[in-house]
Amino acid sequence: MKKFEEKTIQTETIYDGKIVKLQVDDVTLPDGKTSRRELVKHAGAVGIIPITKDNKIVFVEQYRKPLEKSLVEIPAGKLENGEEPSVTALRELEEETGYTASSPTFITSFYTSPGFADEIMYLYLADDLEPVENAASGDDDEFIELLELTLDEARQYVNEQRIHDAKTNYAILYLETLERM
Amino acid sequence: MKKFEEKTIQTETIYDGKIVKLQVDDVTLPDGKTSRRELVKHAGAVGIIPITKDNKIVFVEQYRKPLEKSLVEIPAGKLENGEEPSVTALRELEEETGYTASSPTFITSFYTSPGFADEIMYLYLADDLEPVENAASGDDDEFIELLELTLDEARQYVNEQRIHDAKTNYAILYLETLERM
Repeated sequence: MKKFEEKTIQTETIYDGKIVKLQVDDVTLPDGKTSRRELVKHAGAVGIIPITKDNKIVFVEQYRKPLEKSLVEIPAGKLENGEEPSVTALRELEEETGYTASSPTFITSFYTSPGFADEIMYLYLADDLEPVENAASGDDDEFIELLELTLDEARQYVNEQRIHDAKTNYAILYLETLERM
Repeated sequence: MKKFEEKTIQTETIYDGKIVKLQVDDVTLPDGKTSRRELVKHAGAVGIIPITKDNKIVFVEQYRKPLEKSLVEIPAGKLENGEEPSVTALRELEEETGYTASSPTFITSFYTSPGFADEIMYLYLADDLEPVENAASGDDDEFIELLELTLDEARQYVNEQRIHDAKTNYAILYLETLERM
């Protein structure tokens, strides 16, 4: 849908980094006036909900520099060029947790912050986890700790805001809906 | 929690805009090595789920320049300096929909994209809507169209990806959990 489309008059790349690109566009509004839009470009990401055979959810705790604190999250990562999201999901699962799975189930996707960013998040669930021998390791600058929690424990982490991000909060709520069905 | 804390060695502001600020930090990792972090600073935001007396959800459709398309979303907006999130929620509700409510219920909060941004989203629900005469109008550069949908219709919009953002997808899932209780 293109309702209320804003046509680009001029576009300027302010910064082209490893994770984000910042672009500022001058646009024509539907009433003919002009405005400026600040746009954060991102390759997109996947999150995967790993469920162990004894029905625990595997989380990773890591430091999040933008927040200056650590959060407990489902495993996630950035899409590499042209990669299928389900492939990214399995790669991140292995790198971050040492588990693999045969066929992750697609749950949903959503834009994380459509007002200023184009990042899309694809969410998967994997409940046929197998430990990988000599699992691939992740990025050099990534320090993570694994946690396996029951859904009740995870809910408690949400209450304490140790779990506190869109994809993970969505994942917990999603698992709650399954529980009731 | 400060697990795996990354100490800032140097910080540089690349861009200081109306909506976002882009900052690049050089950091010391837990193993003593250094890395670079790209950080998008944002004031934070609220979303509000407005439920009418005949049990419809009020949405707004607007053009999202980062995506180059329009999305159907719950009313939302950026926190103004020092404002209580519930105050922002009621202000955005009035500006975007022409409704007011007496006491919005806090649902949850989450960081939208903690890997690169500090934006937090506070989510509210308001089910005692009253139309406002001479409602305050919103930003000059905001063009929106109102929609009132049943939960079933909203679910259909999710399937068609006309609803496709974190806060609104979360809101729909949340309303589904209420429906089952």
